Amino acid sequence: METPAAGSAEMPRQFPKLNISEVDEQVRLLAEKVFAKVLREEDSKDALSLFTVPEDCPIGQKEAKERELQKELAEQKSVETAKRKKSFKMIRSQSLSLQMPTQQDWKGPPTSSPVMSPTTPVFPGATSQPTPAPYAMPEFQRVTISGDYCAGITVEDYEQAAKSLAKALMIREKYARLAYHRFPRTTARYLGHRRGDTVPPEEGLPDFHPPPLPQEDPYCLDNAPPNLGYLVRMRGGILFVYDNKKMLERQEPHSLPYPDLETYTVDMSHILALITDGPTKTYCHRRLNFLESKFSLHEMLNEMSEFKELKSNPHRDFYNVRKVDTHIHAAACMNQKHLLRFIKHTYQTEPDRTVAEKRGRKITLRQVFDSLHMDPYDLTVDSLDVHAGRQTFHRFDKFNSKYNPVGASELRDLYLKTENYLGGEYFARMVKEVARELEESKYQYSEPRLSIYGRSPEEWPNLARWFIQHKVYSPNMRWIIQVPRIYDIFRAKKLLPSFGKMLENIFLPLFEATINPQDHQELHLFLKYVTGFDSVDDESKHSDHMFSDKSPSPDVWTSEQNPPYSYYLYYMYANIMVLNNLRRERGLSTFLFRPHCGEAGSITHLVSAFLTADNISHGLLLKKEALMEEYAIAAQVWKLSTCDLCEIARNSVLQSGLSHQEKQKFLGQNYYKEGPEGNDIRKTNVAQIRMAFRYETLCNELSFLSDAMKSEEITALTQ
Amino acid sequence: METPAAGSAEMPRQFPKLNISEVDEQVRLLAEKVFAKVLREEDSKDALSLFTVPEDCPIGQKEAKERELQKELAEQKSVETAKRKKSFKMIRSQSLSLQMPTQQDWKGPPTSSPVMSPTTPVFPGATSQPTPAPYAMPEFQRVTISGDYCAGITVEDYEQAAKSLAKALMIREKYARLAYHRFPRTTARYLGHRRGDTVPPEEGLPDFHPPPLPQEDPYCLDNAPPNLGYLVRMRGGILFVYDNKKMLERQEPHSLPYPDLETYTVDMSHILALITDGPTKTYCHRRLNFLESKFSLHEMLNEMSEFKELKSNPHRDFYNVRKVDTHIHAAACMNQKHLLRFIKHTYQTEPDRTVAEKRGRKITLRQVFDSLHMDPYDLTVDSLDVHAGRQTFHRFDKFNSKYNPVGASELRDLYLKTENYLGGEYFARMVKEVARELEESKYQYSEPRLSIYGRSPEEWPNLARWFIQHKVYSPNMRWIIQVPRIYDIFRAKKLLPSFGKMLENIFLPLFEATINPQDHQELHLFLKYVTGFDSVDDESKHSDHMFSDKSPSPDVWTSEQNPPYSYYLYYMYANIMVLNNLRRERGLSTFLFRPHCGEAGSITHLVSAFLTADNISHGLLLKKEALMEEYAIAAQVWKLSTCDLCEIARNSVLQSGLSHQEKQKFLGQNYYKEGPEGNDIRKTNVAQIRMAFRYETLCNELSFLSDAMKSEEITALTQ
Repeated sequence: METPAAGSAEMPRQFPKLNISEVDEQVRLLAEKVFAKVLREEDSKDALSLFTVPEDCPIGQKEAKERELQKELAEQKSVETAKRKKSFKMIRSQSLSLQMPTQQDWKGPPTSSPVMSPTTPVFPGATSQPTPAPYAMPEFQRVTISGDYCAGITVEDYEQAAKSLAKALMIREKYARLAYHRFPRTTARYLGHRRGDTVPPEEGLPDFHPPPLPQEDPYCLDNAPPNLGYLVRMRGGILFVYDNKKMLERQEPHSLPYPDLETYTVDMSHILALITDGPTKTYCHRRLNFLESKFSLHEMLNEMSEFKELKSNPHRDFYNVRKVDTHIHAAACMNQKHLLRFIKHTYQTEPDRTVAEKRGRKITLRQVFDSLHMDPYDLTVDSLDVHAGRQTFHRFDKFNSKYNPVGASELRDLYLKTENYLGGEYFARMVKEVARELEESKYQYSEPRLSIYGRSPEEWPNLARWFIQHKVYSPNMRWIIQVPRIYDIFRAKKLLPSFGKMLENIFLPLFEATINPQDHQELHLFLKYVTGFDSVDDESKHSDHMFSDKSPSPDVWTSEQNPPYSYYLYYMYANIMVLNNLRRERGLSTFLFRPHCGEAGSITHLVSAFLTADNISHGLLLKKEALMEEYAIAAQVWKLSTCDLCEIARNSVLQSGLSHQEKQKFLGQNYYKEGPEGNDIRKTNVAQIRMAFRYETLCNELSFLSDAMKSEEITALTQ
Repeated sequence: METPAAGSAEMPRQFPKLNISEVDEQVRLLAEKVFAKVLREEDSKDALSLFTVPEDCPIGQKEAKERELQKELAEQKSVETAKRKKSFKMIRSQSLSLQMPTQQDWKGPPTSSPVMSPTTPVFPGATSQPTPAPYAMPEFQRVTISGDYCAGITVEDYEQAAKSLAKALMIREKYARLAYHRFPRTTARYLGHRRGDTVPPEEGLPDFHPPPLPQEDPYCLDNAPPNLGYLVRMRGGILFVYDNKKMLERQEPHSLPYPDLETYTVDMSHILALITDGPTKTYCHRRLNFLESKFSLHEMLNEMSEFKELKSNPHRDFYNVRKVDTHIHAAACMNQKHLLRFIKHTYQTEPDRTVAEKRGRKITLRQVFDSLHMDPYDLTVDSLDVHAGRQTFHRFDKFNSKYNPVGASELRDLYLKTENYLGGEYFARMVKEVARELEESKYQYSEPRLSIYGRSPEEWPNLARWFIQHKVYSPNMRWIIQVPRIYDIFRAKKLLPSFGKMLENIFLPLFEATINPQDHQELHLFLKYVTGFDSVDDESKHSDHMFSDKSPSPDVWTSEQNPPYSYYLYYMYANIMVLNNLRRERGLSTFLFRPHCGEAGSITHLVSAFLTADNISHGLLLKKEALMEEYAIAAQVWKLSTCDLCEIARNSVLQSGLSHQEKQKFLGQNYYKEGPEGNDIRKTNVAQIRMAFRYETLCNELSFLSDAMKSEEITALTQ
């Protein structure tokens, strides 16, 4: 009886009548109201308002969301509803499981029966994994993809892409571990079972000096460790450590991992080949598109639940979660208004103070301004154009001159330098004012950059002295050393004989202070508050030298030509790596390499950083704004939710150089564990649902890689 | 040993060296190539080309897609790969199922354990469902949502929304079945078990007359069924049928479902209340957003697989799948160029033919143009502004005058009318030229609208005569009768005494031709090729009358005021419904009500159509273009894939008035079944994957509604 024309077995052909009085009066009144409204406003736009949902109006949306939330919270209290809720879940799971079998009729072999995406990681090979500590994990809706093993690409392509991506990760892991950089535990595990590597992820992590306790003096120079008497020599741009003279003569260096350029070239070649590989590009492109949609879907489905989690998190909002400005230049950490105020203040209070000396002639502050033909009272934020402008991008070597207040290097030297007639007093005072603001705000931290140029080995002790003399320490600041890539300028000025000398000026003092803290107490102390190195300059600067094991080594790099970015990064990494191992051996803190990368210039910069960097710094914008403002603006621009903002804040703390103890205090005991078990919502205000989504998504992507790696074995098995 | 600072159990601290010669030579060369390229083009934009994926360039994308496909097709042939593919699936399902249990640690009660969304429908209640016929169902990636029962809204809201949506669907189903309109089988089943309704979905479907066989004469007036002798009278705007005079006197109408306005008002109130209900709006808004993302995700994951399906479908592409223009006005079915050519042609060939008569004076074609002071040779497509322009939207009652070639009603009457001195010969000839084009293209069909105004009962026989006299029949055309909502104009011109009379003029001839085909052979024949009714006019026309059971009935609606849209629709539906039941009883074809709706004006129009229409016509654009062009343009505008286009084409055939036999021929034996089992890719070129996605998605949404409906029972059970 399949033909639609079938006349038989008709349904009873009469019209089932209803009586108006049977209708709930309310419905009738409402209907009439609607009709009336429509009649009145048929042509006016807001006739629709009755039937639409607040879409574009943020306020309307926010209100609607709030109402929703109140309802839900109220609901949770009702036993009745709880029961009903439960019953719905029962129906769902039942009615749905009912439907699974029939699906087979369509999909043939059970091997292809729907499969969930991973939720908590299982590390094949890793027999005993620590079971996650029990913690509240609210339910949420998971977006899972059942069916095929990977978006429509061929097995060969998938295999090739997955394997080369896995290889790339292993290479990065190798360099990260050698330098005591961080590498994600989960990723390590998914790769781990391959390399039979059994290092527990907690180990080989960087070590940052915890801040002194309140009662301790942050400038105390006592009990610096004794001299080890090691000797240090530069060979091929890398500092080698020798236990003593004899070993030095024998050229038998102290047992540390000294990097090998040939190996580095090989590894770099692999990554370079990878980024141009068709299948890999396609695979990544697809996965990234997919992940983007997956997240938007997750938000759509769980926005309310995440929102609920945060709301039920007592007295925590975005303003009282810890956040770190991981990328700011000390010379620009104060805003223009601040600098302007400070300049005017000094001019008012100490115009006759001697602040400089030119050809033996002492110069007062008033004289400085007179010589510039300017009166501080005329200065305005606009005339005081100190922040990085357009040109800064393109002529980064002009970076410093760009930071001249009203372009006068006199004022820069006076107010924004650590080395000048006043011993950098003005600069120190301003930095400290910024520090006080952070300390008052309590939840904001920053990692300002101080410059080491490598012109002379004296830069280090001077910087340390400046720091201690002016008591620049602040619990809310950790220091990063930025090294401008301007060898060419110094070389042209005959300030340096070779690139090797520049490297020596930058790193030798650190090795000496590490081997013999007793005789370098100030630097030793200062280094407790230094957590990493940055490499800065105009990335778009072109270089036609191709870095490889054939390149001239730094000690013979004497030309005025600047080495390429990749060359700088390798030798910075190499020396930091050796240094970190030496310091770790002594139980001293280690440093992170966090170069600027990817702002401009060649894509290969990212390859170098992928191998050598713990993480990369970026974002000129940050130079201009107070931290909180940035978040507020970002939220506006990208429509970020509170949960998004708190997630970003949490990440900024994670990747910062704050010590293990501080991170435990700010993020929670298990902060270094990945996924929800590493998150303490009471401190971070990041929804566990969000954490779970990120973690499960990561695991799913990683499982694609590890599956590809074990394919041969399995293929063998299934023969 | 959980602290990251852990110094013990260090990984061996040496640098693992690699030898350059160990690297695959290829990798090295490639790396150098990359480097070289970068060095050369660092600053030029296309340096990136190496590393990017064709994103914006459609050609690039298409090529990439083609390459991918070739690979995949090649792959399918390789046994080796097949094995590997299988092994991957094994790994996936295994590695993933491995991960499921551990998930419990997080998610607590098993009730919340992930649950798949439905894939093939199971109709709770409906004990024995026909198992789908076996057909090729390629695997694809399903987007499923595990976890909670419904996006973050409260149980109360979900329940309320789901229940009122289900109720609305049931109301629509009632009116659809009564009028032999179509109602989706799947939806009916999900609602069905509620109402204990056991009507097999194949039944109660509309019945369209199959086209005559090639050897048959489409104009054969023989064997019209005999006279039943029934009598017809209008009561309250609805035609009632009486078996004979006696019954008429007794006011005992023939047993047919005669609609009841009070009931209709009640039902309408429910829908009106529904569309303003907060929870329902929120629920729908969320689901719609979700479904949009779900589809884009589906496309992302399965685009290639769908593409593959189509490619492996021999000699079928978008150009040779059947498609129907379901919305076109006969008077505008030819494009301007065509009309222009035709006018010039007639002027050249028969200038002296008498083509009109004014006050008894015969007028030749030349005289017509002379009186208009125009020479056809001067006519251009632009001067010939016949297509619907801006004003048409706003003064739809001017619709006809708008269709004046160069605004001259003489030309309109002459070329675009069925009733004139030439008996509509010119119009017929043009329509037939269009029909020939369709027949030649073979795969294109259309459903042009012809007007019945309801001014006089003679319109019907005249139209039928025109059709037969000029042999307008075409296998590629089915006819829809459009009734302009312009009672007010006729009333003002004193052409009609009441709205009831207009309805009588429109429907009485149809009842008579149905009861007594013998004496109305021409109309009886013509009706074989008429498949439905359209209601047309400017929807934005405002009316301040609120339609309800309190409204004056049509026979007493004598004012010059035009009744509102809802009033028109109800009485059109009511009479079509009775007529269809009468015709069905005689085994004659039935008609669909397919009004224009939602172009402009009140949202309540959609409510009326939701109750009374089989489907709604819309889209003025279609009036201008040849069918194929439209698709091409749409494809450009919305970036539609071939699969998308073929899906639209398939839907156009489904919702058209083509007969069961034709649809089986064009779409496949089981076209009327929903989901993949109803699709024959060999004919439709629509991927089964797409069909499955649509079907499973529909079932998932419907299951939310049916689950809500059974909630009480279950709650009772779980007490």
